[in-house]
Amino acid sequence: MPAFDFTPLIAPGAPPPAAKWTGSPRYNFTGGNNDPAQVPVDDLLSAAEAVLRREGRSLAYYGVAHGPQGYRPLRDFLAAKLKRDAGIVCSADEILLVSGSLQAFDLINGALLAPGDTVIVERDTYQGMLNRYARAGVNAIGVPLDRDGMQIDALERTLVSLNTKGVRPKYIYTIPTVQNPTGTIMPVTRRTALLALSEKYGVPVFEDDCYSDLIWSGERPAALYAMSGSGNVIHIGSFSKSIAPALRVGFIVAPWPILSRMIALKVDAGSGALEQMVLAEYCAPHFSSHVPALRQGLRKKLEVLMDALDQQFGIAAEFDDPPGGIFLWVKLPDSVDTLKLYQSALAAGVAINPGPEWSTDATHSKSRMRLCFASPTEQELREGIEILADICRTTFGVPERSGNIARRPKQA
Amino acid sequence: MPAFDFTPLIAPGAPPPAAKWTGSPRYNFTGGNNDPAQVPVDDLLSAAEAVLRREGRSLAYYGVAHGPQGYRPLRDFLAAKLKRDAGIVCSADEILLVSGSLQAFDLINGALLAPGDTVIVERDTYQGMLNRYARAGVNAIGVPLDRDGMQIDALERTLVSLNTKGVRPKYIYTIPTVQNPTGTIMPVTRRTALLALSEKYGVPVFEDDCYSDLIWSGERPAALYAMSGSGNVIHIGSFSKSIAPALRVGFIVAPWPILSRMIALKVDAGSGALEQMVLAEYCAPHFSSHVPALRQGLRKKLEVLMDALDQQFGIAAEFDDPPGGIFLWVKLPDSVDTLKLYQSALAAGVAINPGPEWSTDATHSKSRMRLCFASPTEQELREGIEILADICRTTFGVPERSGNIARRPKQA
Repeated sequence: MPAFDFTPLIAPGAPPPAAKWTGSPRYNFTGGNNDPAQVPVDDLLSAAEAVLRREGRSLAYYGVAHGPQGYRPLRDFLAAKLKRDAGIVCSADEILLVSGSLQAFDLINGALLAPGDTVIVERDTYQGMLNRYARAGVNAIGVPLDRDGMQIDALERTLVSLNTKGVRPKYIYTIPTVQNPTGTIMPVTRRTALLALSEKYGVPVFEDDCYSDLIWSGERPAALYAMSGSGNVIHIGSFSKSIAPALRVGFIVAPWPILSRMIALKVDAGSGALEQMVLAEYCAPHFSSHVPALRQGLRKKLEVLMDALDQQFGIAAEFDDPPGGIFLWVKLPDSVDTLKLYQSALAAGVAINPGPEWSTDATHSKSRMRLCFASPTEQELREGIEILADICRTTFGVPERSGNIARRPKQA
Repeated sequence: MPAFDFTPLIAPGAPPPAAKWTGSPRYNFTGGNNDPAQVPVDDLLSAAEAVLRREGRSLAYYGVAHGPQGYRPLRDFLAAKLKRDAGIVCSADEILLVSGSLQAFDLINGALLAPGDTVIVERDTYQGMLNRYARAGVNAIGVPLDRDGMQIDALERTLVSLNTKGVRPKYIYTIPTVQNPTGTIMPVTRRTALLALSEKYGVPVFEDDCYSDLIWSGERPAALYAMSGSGNVIHIGSFSKSIAPALRVGFIVAPWPILSRMIALKVDAGSGALEQMVLAEYCAPHFSSHVPALRQGLRKKLEVLMDALDQQFGIAAEFDDPPGGIFLWVKLPDSVDTLKLYQSALAAGVAINPGPEWSTDATHSKSRMRLCFASPTEQELREGIEILADICRTTFGVPERSGNIARRPKQA
């Protein structure tokens, strides 16, 4: 019997078929993976044992009968943590636990966005969000960044220009605290100005706070959510970067009138309860000691990466030493097309994020790339960058041969 | 400062806001909850310990670096289990692990359905699916059931009629093995006929197999997926009914040309890996002994429920003794409107599923209700049904007063 042909039945606009997965690249500088050596296995194991022994029978109920917003003790932990770290005063009732921050994206976008809508984003921003806008037929307008994050004067020009055209954007999506991919932190004065523009133009702020635990200094500005006087901010976060990304636990903090819209859209019968339970049991006693140790290890890896780039690329690789996070945003010479570099490097087992996939501006991002440094070993970081430099040299003629490479002055 | 008003920004067609959750009803006959006493806590705990000790560090990678189809050992377990129990010959490469069967719905519908499309379903069917069609603007045509499941002659009439109108339905959604809510099992001859009609009209079959582990006899017909010679079936299943619903782990089995479309739509960075890991570690040694014990306990609860209905409703409650599952589909006298009964009962702490929410036919289902019996205790089953009968009597005059109630003949 001939194979049944599904082709004529596929929904219009469905993405093309996925390719078969062929394993992880040997040198993986992509994805938000974390450092395997820093997963707190023993304490997670003890937490799993304690919570299963105490509450395991409740797994018989969807969402362990804690309602659609998720496991209550984890929401209580978050309410306390958000107050301590980010200045956010909220109760467990304003928190919705979700299956990773990507489900937060889908719920927020589901409540607010329709095809043809406009949103304002940072010019360089998270690829997963840009892909969602493309699929949803949403127009994402990028606002340039500088070392203090989104440029407020450019944001205002964008808002004025849209207003003139009668367009009210649905929100301003920002990653103000360790911006992805640029790594910048928006200072308080700029946060205040951003919130004022949000008020003035009636455009809410979507604050993506997924990286804020990973600031080397351990000090962060208050969240936009905390600074808002009017409830014009939706705040999301995740345990992917602070604990482990394979645990799919993220969260949304939002005023009830909009949070209740997202809960109505969350028709998944709850996010994974075991992961929420283990995290709650683990985080209450361990989060505040685990994260500083994690940061220290990540900082060390970043230094290895920056040193390897200096060694292999010299002045051909420009970057700022980021104040935290798990990625470095690197500018290569204008002659380099990182989409092409990505293809050649992948064939050699080195995966990078080409700039154009992380930007609304293909020209600006053409020679830029994002390098994630949390999961490779120090040896892999060094070897991978050496291979990447070789491929870049073969393909684009830069950097100069490493023997006589022009070096950046040593960082302070 | 006045509160920011999100109302003008809400996407057209977004569902109304969720109500605040106020806790679980005292007597809960709704939802696919399981029996808390039957959650294999100790063995799940040992599994969690073993797998975390061995592979915990891999939580640092999205999807523990097993690729977008999910944790490989769980897919291997499923391939073996599906072969043994359902006759399905497939490899781990044809299996996609998802966050509960509801995500399976969303991925299958996402790949195939557009607003205005038509699907064929069983007249009485799963509410979560009907709600999805309503939201997606999809036309669901119900085919009547009898004690052998979907009626094939009625299905053919529907296919002919649609064909005449130039409508090619996107799929036939069926729950052939312990149908939800009617509890029927489709015999092999009817399965063969269903597959032949699918071939003839070029309409694939969507086989929802979530309850097939819970057949009292332990024996099930081969899955439609196993019987298909042409790859015209998409098969889904779940661990919610066999292990625990709070673990959000379901799966899709499908030929690669359509499975690859679903993988492309699964942009969630993986489903929860810890739950997949614990299930794989638990199921390999324990699944085949756990499930028969679970079934025995569920059968006992069903008998309590049926006895309570006999005692309290007498001949006013008509139902077939189902061959498996966790729910009973009950017909009350025609004068009873179960949507109204639902409201009154909920106010008294008794939650039921009113028929019209589980059917494409409001008239047929008006006096029917679904009662889930897995999670209440035997005492709660008896007390809840007594309260329900009192409310039904007060509101609709039936059943007769329990002292002189007309009783059904004792079941064989």
